[in-house]
Amino acid sequence: MNHLIDSLAVESDAKILFLILDGLGGLPDLDQGGTELEVATTPNMDALARKSVCGFLDPIHPGITSGSGPGHLGLFGYDPVETDIGRGLLGAAGVGFPLTDRDLAIRCNFCNLDDKGHITDRRAGRIDSELNRARCSAIMKALRPIEGVEIFLSTEKDHRAVLVVRGDNLSDDLVETDPQATGVPARHPDPLSEGANKASTVLADFLSQVGEILSGEMQANSLLLRGYAKHRRLPSLTERFKLKNPLAMATMPMYLGIGRLIGMEPVEGLGTIEEEVEALREHFHEERDFFFLHVKKTDSYGEDGNFDAKKKVIEEVDRLLPDILALSPSVLVITGDHSTPSQMRAHSFHPSPVLIASDLARVDGATQFGETACITGGLGRNRAQDLMGLSLAHAGRLRKFGA
Amino acid sequence: MNHLIDSLAVESDAKILFLILDGLGGLPDLDQGGTELEVATTPNMDALARKSVCGFLDPIHPGITSGSGPGHLGLFGYDPVETDIGRGLLGAAGVGFPLTDRDLAIRCNFCNLDDKGHITDRRAGRIDSELNRARCSAIMKALRPIEGVEIFLSTEKDHRAVLVVRGDNLSDDLVETDPQATGVPARHPDPLSEGANKASTVLADFLSQVGEILSGEMQANSLLLRGYAKHRRLPSLTERFKLKNPLAMATMPMYLGIGRLIGMEPVEGLGTIEEEVEALREHFHEERDFFFLHVKKTDSYGEDGNFDAKKKVIEEVDRLLPDILALSPSVLVITGDHSTPSQMRAHSFHPSPVLIASDLARVDGATQFGETACITGGLGRNRAQDLMGLSLAHAGRLRKFGA
Repeated sequence: MNHLIDSLAVESDAKILFLILDGLGGLPDLDQGGTELEVATTPNMDALARKSVCGFLDPIHPGITSGSGPGHLGLFGYDPVETDIGRGLLGAAGVGFPLTDRDLAIRCNFCNLDDKGHITDRRAGRIDSELNRARCSAIMKALRPIEGVEIFLSTEKDHRAVLVVRGDNLSDDLVETDPQATGVPARHPDPLSEGANKASTVLADFLSQVGEILSGEMQANSLLLRGYAKHRRLPSLTERFKLKNPLAMATMPMYLGIGRLIGMEPVEGLGTIEEEVEALREHFHEERDFFFLHVKKTDSYGEDGNFDAKKKVIEEVDRLLPDILALSPSVLVITGDHSTPSQMRAHSFHPSPVLIASDLARVDGATQFGETACITGGLGRNRAQDLMGLSLAHAGRLRKFGA
Repeated sequence: MNHLIDSLAVESDAKILFLILDGLGGLPDLDQGGTELEVATTPNMDALARKSVCGFLDPIHPGITSGSGPGHLGLFGYDPVETDIGRGLLGAAGVGFPLTDRDLAIRCNFCNLDDKGHITDRRAGRIDSELNRARCSAIMKALRPIEGVEIFLSTEKDHRAVLVVRGDNLSDDLVETDPQATGVPARHPDPLSEGANKASTVLADFLSQVGEILSGEMQANSLLLRGYAKHRRLPSLTERFKLKNPLAMATMPMYLGIGRLIGMEPVEGLGTIEEEVEALREHFHEERDFFFLHVKKTDSYGEDGNFDAKKKVIEEVDRLLPDILALSPSVLVITGDHSTPSQMRAHSFHPSPVLIASDLARVDGATQFGETACITGGLGRNRAQDLMGLSLAHAGRLRKFGA
């Protein structure tokens, strides 16, 4: 259905703001009397809910738990299952790496090799991010230049890293070096088609140098390459929905990276929600139609199992909400990319509560912004990827279909 | 979307129980003050609803009335429209026939032939099941063996029967003998491709013998063959969803047959709901992940137009519910395969109320299990084929999608 939305989108000055509280949805805590969102003191969100239309979003499909990458792609109107942007690209986006069209992005794992060069642990004993950073830094420091390319290696998390090779004529049609087994050597990054010869030569040189640089180490002394992805530009929000100069505000590079993949300009260097709201105020009256403000800590505290801390982050956002409303966006959406109930300490499959505030909202009976109140909301239960169409509609940015 | 659920399913010891009350949903009776389910005294279901998430399932699609076959296939996560298991196979499953990979199953109608062998009634005046059974029995008793195959003929209902031919090298690529017209002879079961020669010869022999055996009868003196289906194994619940050793409990062979088509082990010889629950208790702690307990009489009494009797069956299930809950399944689903309002004396298009009880349920405000209360349920309105994904999710048996 998304192509239909694209074809109906028109230019307009109406501004849309997505306020995304990562992992917003929760499960009721019987002692506390509700979910984190319900128990939080949120007079401003509740007042807004009374003037809005509320409901639920399923990030992917009922029952499916979404990662943050597909969760956000869905919110922005991109089919999170069909949009195959490659693990390497999401990884690069995830560490906030600013990709160009000349980049080959590769997910890799640190692994352990024995003295015969056989893999003893495909995840290097699941090293922590700190040791990972030390290894990446040692490699980047000692790496001799490889002709015709630039190399970037970044820690992702635990044993995972992202390698980016920048240059001309790089193909991603290569053998993955992870043999998915231990007791055997890694595979060679052989080309699977003629165009991949250069990439193969470059990666063989890189891996050989990595072996030399880390030769004194017993742990995390090599890298396995899996998930090659040549940078493929996704059609941007501007191309698809005629949203001029969309802006992304986030404290975590990954979310700026996801925004960048679909043509958002990132605001770098933000550390707190207050700074994010300040950045929004600063840029709001520029010639921009779309704003994505991402709040990370609702998810982090959910994953920590910290109900109270997650609740407090929601309260902090609520306190800043009047500043946001004072900007008078045509459409303000508040929702999450998925649920992260602190009882589960993990992302969950439960749909996200959503609120759409707009002069065009068909206001419903929901008197609070929360999971139980949203059941009575006028939006019902929707796929997250329908949110963009609904938002454009509430901004008056979609033409009529048919006569 | 189902392939996505399949790809995310993981092994686990969490047990899922589907308690399917056939034709559960109803229409409100204004004198009684509600539907059969609402008027029934169901303290146990109501208490469970208060700790569950409730909503609705559309068996096929909003507005479509489902038969029992597709209704159940949907509940088990099989697209009831796309899953082409052949009318012959559903028929054989419907009479509880245990199919093997060597079987060719055929739907057939008894018909009337005049003395010239021309069809005078393609449905033999819609004979009743009793006469049908007498004819099938006469045929099976007098039938001379046909080389290389075994033949089974079973009454389905009214003028309909199911013929199963078991042997090697049988193809279903044959001309249907029903000419869809009267005043003409039946067609010959000619092969439509070379591989179907054997089946064609066998069926010609069989039909010729049937003609001889029933030559003294005026009514129901021949069979028209329609809907050939070579047995095609559907991917089982174990293959698709990693549900180990699923078990089916039903009093009617048809439902055991449907379970068998998707790899459930049937418990035979059960006559009452109490016996079904007893069988559940007996097998529950075996190494099994999925249980299907089917209650038939809600539907039968609905089709009889007997509101009170349908209500009483629901009350009987409610009385047995504590025994079921005492087994502590990780997920208990209560729903129907379609609605059968006794006012309509037939299956109807109304969505089925559904309840999912699980520690991971986002409990909603529904204080009763009934059609009106389910409107306030947190599940909203879903396709029946999304139930399996939702159930696996509530059992913690699905991995996250994407990072």
